[in-house]
Amino acid sequence: MRSLVLIGHGSHLNGESAVAAYRYAELIRARGLFDEVIEGYWKEEPSLRQVLKTTASTDVTVIPMFISEGYFTETVIPRELGLGHQGPVPPEGIARVIGGRTVRYTLPYGVHPGMADVIVARAREVLPELGPDGPDDGVETALIVLGHGTTRNENSSRVIYENAARLRERGLFSEVHALFLDEEPRVTGWADLVRAPRVVIVPFFASEGWHTLETIPEELGLSGVVTPFPDTPHGPQQVHYARPVGTHAAVAEVILHLAEEARGAGGPGGDTERGHEAAWQAFLKLARRGARVGELLVTPELGVFEIRNALDEGRPGGDLMTLVTPEGVRDRVRFTDGGEHRPVHTLRSLPRGWRAVLNEADLRRAVHYTYPAVVEETYAHGCHALRPTPWATTARRQTGIYAKVQRAVPEQVERVAERVCGGCLRTRLWAGDRLTHSFLDGVPGGMPCAEACTFLVAEVREEVARKKAAAASDD
Amino acid sequence: MRSLVLIGHGSHLNGESAVAAYRYAELIRARGLFDEVIEGYWKEEPSLRQVLKTTASTDVTVIPMFISEGYFTETVIPRELGLGHQGPVPPEGIARVIGGRTVRYTLPYGVHPGMADVIVARAREVLPELGPDGPDDGVETALIVLGHGTTRNENSSRVIYENAARLRERGLFSEVHALFLDEEPRVTGWADLVRAPRVVIVPFFASEGWHTLETIPEELGLSGVVTPFPDTPHGPQQVHYARPVGTHAAVAEVILHLAEEARGAGGPGGDTERGHEAAWQAFLKLARRGARVGELLVTPELGVFEIRNALDEGRPGGDLMTLVTPEGVRDRVRFTDGGEHRPVHTLRSLPRGWRAVLNEADLRRAVHYTYPAVVEETYAHGCHALRPTPWATTARRQTGIYAKVQRAVPEQVERVAERVCGGCLRTRLWAGDRLTHSFLDGVPGGMPCAEACTFLVAEVREEVARKKAAAASDD
Repeated sequence: MRSLVLIGHGSHLNGESAVAAYRYAELIRARGLFDEVIEGYWKEEPSLRQVLKTTASTDVTVIPMFISEGYFTETVIPRELGLGHQGPVPPEGIARVIGGRTVRYTLPYGVHPGMADVIVARAREVLPELGPDGPDDGVETALIVLGHGTTRNENSSRVIYENAARLRERGLFSEVHALFLDEEPRVTGWADLVRAPRVVIVPFFASEGWHTLETIPEELGLSGVVTPFPDTPHGPQQVHYARPVGTHAAVAEVILHLAEEARGAGGPGGDTERGHEAAWQAFLKLARRGARVGELLVTPELGVFEIRNALDEGRPGGDLMTLVTPEGVRDRVRFTDGGEHRPVHTLRSLPRGWRAVLNEADLRRAVHYTYPAVVEETYAHGCHALRPTPWATTARRQTGIYAKVQRAVPEQVERVAERVCGGCLRTRLWAGDRLTHSFLDGVPGGMPCAEACTFLVAEVREEVARKKAAAASDD
Repeated sequence: MRSLVLIGHGSHLNGESAVAAYRYAELIRARGLFDEVIEGYWKEEPSLRQVLKTTASTDVTVIPMFISEGYFTETVIPRELGLGHQGPVPPEGIARVIGGRTVRYTLPYGVHPGMADVIVARAREVLPELGPDGPDDGVETALIVLGHGTTRNENSSRVIYENAARLRERGLFSEVHALFLDEEPRVTGWADLVRAPRVVIVPFFASEGWHTLETIPEELGLSGVVTPFPDTPHGPQQVHYARPVGTHAAVAEVILHLAEEARGAGGPGGDTERGHEAAWQAFLKLARRGARVGELLVTPELGVFEIRNALDEGRPGGDLMTLVTPEGVRDRVRFTDGGEHRPVHTLRSLPRGWRAVLNEADLRRAVHYTYPAVVEETYAHGCHALRPTPWATTARRQTGIYAKVQRAVPEQVERVAERVCGGCLRTRLWAGDRLTHSFLDGVPGGMPCAEACTFLVAEVREEVARKKAAAASDD
């Protein structure tokens, strides 16, 4: 049995941030090569601190869904996963045994050599004439691999140069350039460098966004997929502007390659992780009698299960949107009825107006999406196996912009937590609150909170920053 | 049968604003002269638009809990209650038949002649020597009736002059002055006017607050209840500073007098209002079988009822704070678990951690406090008797600072409503949403919203103001 975990950044604000990881997970799930594909996030749920607990097997491969190496792949993710590793990840990845699971952590997909194929695939989308050996129409064509570039981390430009070198070797293009938005050589100078009359620009970016949709077209004067430049130093040129590599379906292939390489010689895979399975069996036992989990009502129905918001109990099915897949549930519960993003799924804002009819396997996945890591953590709490992490420990672990939460005094943390956690189902064990009965005992709202989530950490950081700003203006 | 309604201003922000009305309602309830005493608010619930529906009898006396006549007592309250009256209220009050109820609307308690007694009572608290005919110790004593004063409304100063005149006639004090914070003659000039060696200042204010606790003591240099002024134009003087009249328990007597006078020759009182009674009988029928009302779980138990947050279902009673009065429930559900004020009780933030054990009569009142007007409106909706008020009508009715919501375009209203109403249990009939099943049909979250509440109106106003500010800064 094998589990694959895809790690995305996620966002406390933007509900679309997690979509890329969802999409690749779905593509890989459909291939059936892994027994399960789980998404985890820095700023959403299941969080990096929780995601390993939510995997069903003892053989877990973790792939960071980042376009280049850097702070997140080398510092944040290894630390939060508890890998006991900091700094550059070797090409073969890192393997550790964590809580009974063998965890293999790989390089980010963006640095895999297979990304050169994704660049070509993106180029071909805007230049259909590009055959297996070069343009079929014989027109000399240049390729620009466009990176963001930054002065802070040389890794992010290295991957651009490496891909440019690889593609130069393949000989599909008459010229291949590595250019950047924010460092030299800059893409704005392309016309001085590129001689070919036809130029394909492929942004080596993780996703569509402000840069690919706004700043790049604006700075280069692009008017669409193809823009003619009649008056450039090397004569008339035509620029074909491709979509970013990170959202191409072929990235799923790269991810699978990464995962295979991380396993080395391979092997039979792992076993079912017993604690995980026991947690879900406890949940299913409850579900078969009908259960309330937080704001969710689970009703057994002739061999399948129906879930809905408990506030919708008794509403005729026809009044509700009926969902039939865990993914459908996932996409519904990601937003409140007011359309707001729900980075913390245990906030009491589960949307209404829907129901899902699911078999037992899909019920597990739907509940995982509705309340990520809650079944595992609640079961562990019931077995006295969930260890709370006090605030001081959580704070000490923070780095980067979050390091300043270490300066928060207990009263500040408590004030922010009262506001933020007041609307959350979970009981703050890490703050000394006691949870004697959980939903597994029939108390719908009973769910443990083992440690401050990143949402609370971010809010405490805001509080510290505000206080500092206020103090400064008092001077 | 007779109902008394006390109208307070309430607040969207400050959870303490409603407390005065609660307190007087309790005092009068304890006297047993009315079959029920209901609180209603401009900015809390039950709102002015709802409060008459929540009264059980067809004989309703409505008293504005304001210290003086003005915009609220003459414009806002009559309009929102649907009295069909605007402007000064005659001394005998206004009587109207509204929805089958005889409604008597009185002057605010502050203008009742009985307030002179409250002033004396407050004076006596800081000057125990004040006997029925004047100071027992024979020391000449002056009284200052201190009003806020304003250039906008002469009514607010008239009541101060009237009370001063009344008390001058009684002869308890050697001098009686009407002085003001914000208009001439100002209280800051007291030492030039007042000759008596002992001076009692009684603030004619509705409640303790910024003025009575901060600005008045500061401007006058008061150091506590008694402040000696050794060096004033008329020789050494001593100032006794009393608490505001509006919070004195004797105000309850004034309210009762007002109510009696409004009834004129009196009479047998009204009948039970049938629609109201039918609504509550429908609710009780449900409750006797066990019911879910919004986030509330109602469980019949050996002749009494237990209510709690449905998320706490199954928690042992000992884990919860047990409440035994409707007032206890009221004070608990007024705040979220995060300690935030809940001006809109149908927002999905009912606190957890408590239960109440109540008899049938108290259950009615507790549910009224938990979800004000919801039983009446939901029952009416089920009988096709709840008429939604479209936004345009609500907006047109607004005056004062809220008149500008008339400028909101439908998209703005919808955007704000999505955010504000997204967390509310109620279904917006006024926006065209349909509610086919309510909690009376067994769907816990099914509750109608007949018109935009003042909370939404205030948020739309903010939106309009923001947009205007943004447009101005674009110029």
